[in-house]
Amino acid sequence: MPNQNIVVIGASGGLGSAFVNFFADNPGNRIHAFARSEIESQLTNVSVGRIDFADEASIQHAAEQSAQEGPLDCVIVATGILHDTNLMPEKSLRDLSVEKFQRNLLANTIGPALIAKHFLPRLQRKQRSIFAALSARVGSIGDNHLGGWYAYRASKAALNMLIKTASIEVARRQPKAIIVGLHPGTVDTNLSQPFQQRVPSEKLFTPDYSVKKLSSVLDGLSTEDSGKIFAWDGSEIPY
Amino acid sequence: MPNQNIVVIGASGGLGSAFVNFFADNPGNRIHAFARSEIESQLTNVSVGRIDFADEASIQHAAEQSAQEGPLDCVIVATGILHDTNLMPEKSLRDLSVEKFQRNLLANTIGPALIAKHFLPRLQRKQRSIFAALSARVGSIGDNHLGGWYAYRASKAALNMLIKTASIEVARRQPKAIIVGLHPGTVDTNLSQPFQQRVPSEKLFTPDYSVKKLSSVLDGLSTEDSGKIFAWDGSEIPY
Repeated sequence: MPNQNIVVIGASGGLGSAFVNFFADNPGNRIHAFARSEIESQLTNVSVGRIDFADEASIQHAAEQSAQEGPLDCVIVATGILHDTNLMPEKSLRDLSVEKFQRNLLANTIGPALIAKHFLPRLQRKQRSIFAALSARVGSIGDNHLGGWYAYRASKAALNMLIKTASIEVARRQPKAIIVGLHPGTVDTNLSQPFQQRVPSEKLFTPDYSVKKLSSVLDGLSTEDSGKIFAWDGSEIPY
Repeated sequence: MPNQNIVVIGASGGLGSAFVNFFADNPGNRIHAFARSEIESQLTNVSVGRIDFADEASIQHAAEQSAQEGPLDCVIVATGILHDTNLMPEKSLRDLSVEKFQRNLLANTIGPALIAKHFLPRLQRKQRSIFAALSARVGSIGDNHLGGWYAYRASKAALNMLIKTASIEVARRQPKAIIVGLHPGTVDTNLSQPFQQRVPSEKLFTPDYSVKKLSSVLDGLSTEDSGKIFAWDGSEIPY
């Protein structure tokens, strides 16, 4: 790929930091890496900054800053939560709570929506450009056979809807932009950590492997793919 | 249909009140009608109560009260918002706001989820029982061709995911329960009022007409339909 102006949001996470490293390998690329926490990079072609989903001005500022030297070729949204000390995915209806819904929806749906609002208009229009957000196979309604994980599943289904809706709007005025959701597989990160025991070791990816696969999926996309959800192996995931 | 123990939530709305009247026509039915505002009924087989989505205890109390004289045959969730004075659906990405997302998600996703949590275990197990929530065709990701209405669409896609997820859980221990989403058509209610000018008059339903059609859809459902979304004419809507 030629030299690109790339944004990675959620750059402190396992997948986000692997994306930054992958793109930074090409010294001609310019990478803008954002995270909620303060991050650092020794790499000369990576600049860092902070984004807080609860503060829309921080997102707007990040978008302006990233596009200062030219429009964007690629925006990767690698944020997302599934659990933390006080938040475990629901095994059953009786585990549902307003707080679990609100936290999942803010991180996995509303945050990426605000990123789309401020970053999509800054994608470049002369050539193909990409906006990709991490979705998940468990966010597929049609592919849901196991149940459980209510708030996380709902937040990712809502994200898939936003991806589809944004792809329709953007196609009207930025016809070379491609907007997709990505399922990274089960990756050895904090997000999957409590659930890895069920996963056979050959199906538990390193972040670097998943990012390599996802990048080759992104390389192969055309504008007809906009609005869809793809897995790490290039297969399309139903809504 | 034989005499039934029925719950209608959102009973002050155009569709909710039409559901109450429809079911109350059979004097053998017992109807428990709930709304956020205080409601009244002159009908002898209708009891009324209040539910506030921001107060989970009110939902739990309503469920206990409804099942006091026996398990439930049918629960209709007819709540939902699309707009009010300070909330109009987004025409474009630039109209997105955290507040619009949070209000739509609380009313259209989180509220119905809490209702499912407290009411589903009270459905009767001896015969077929039904839990139906008002979804919307615009909540279909696959059927989205127009774009716009980001927060509303996302909240209904998330609701569809909850319907599917709950259907899987419930099938394990209440195999006669059927959980579906319903698209009522464009109905002449407050919800559709600002958008009716685009709708040809023969496609703008009265609440009574829509409820009659939806009830006959519900009558025809079998357990294989659980987890799916149906329109007023009985056709299945893709996720």
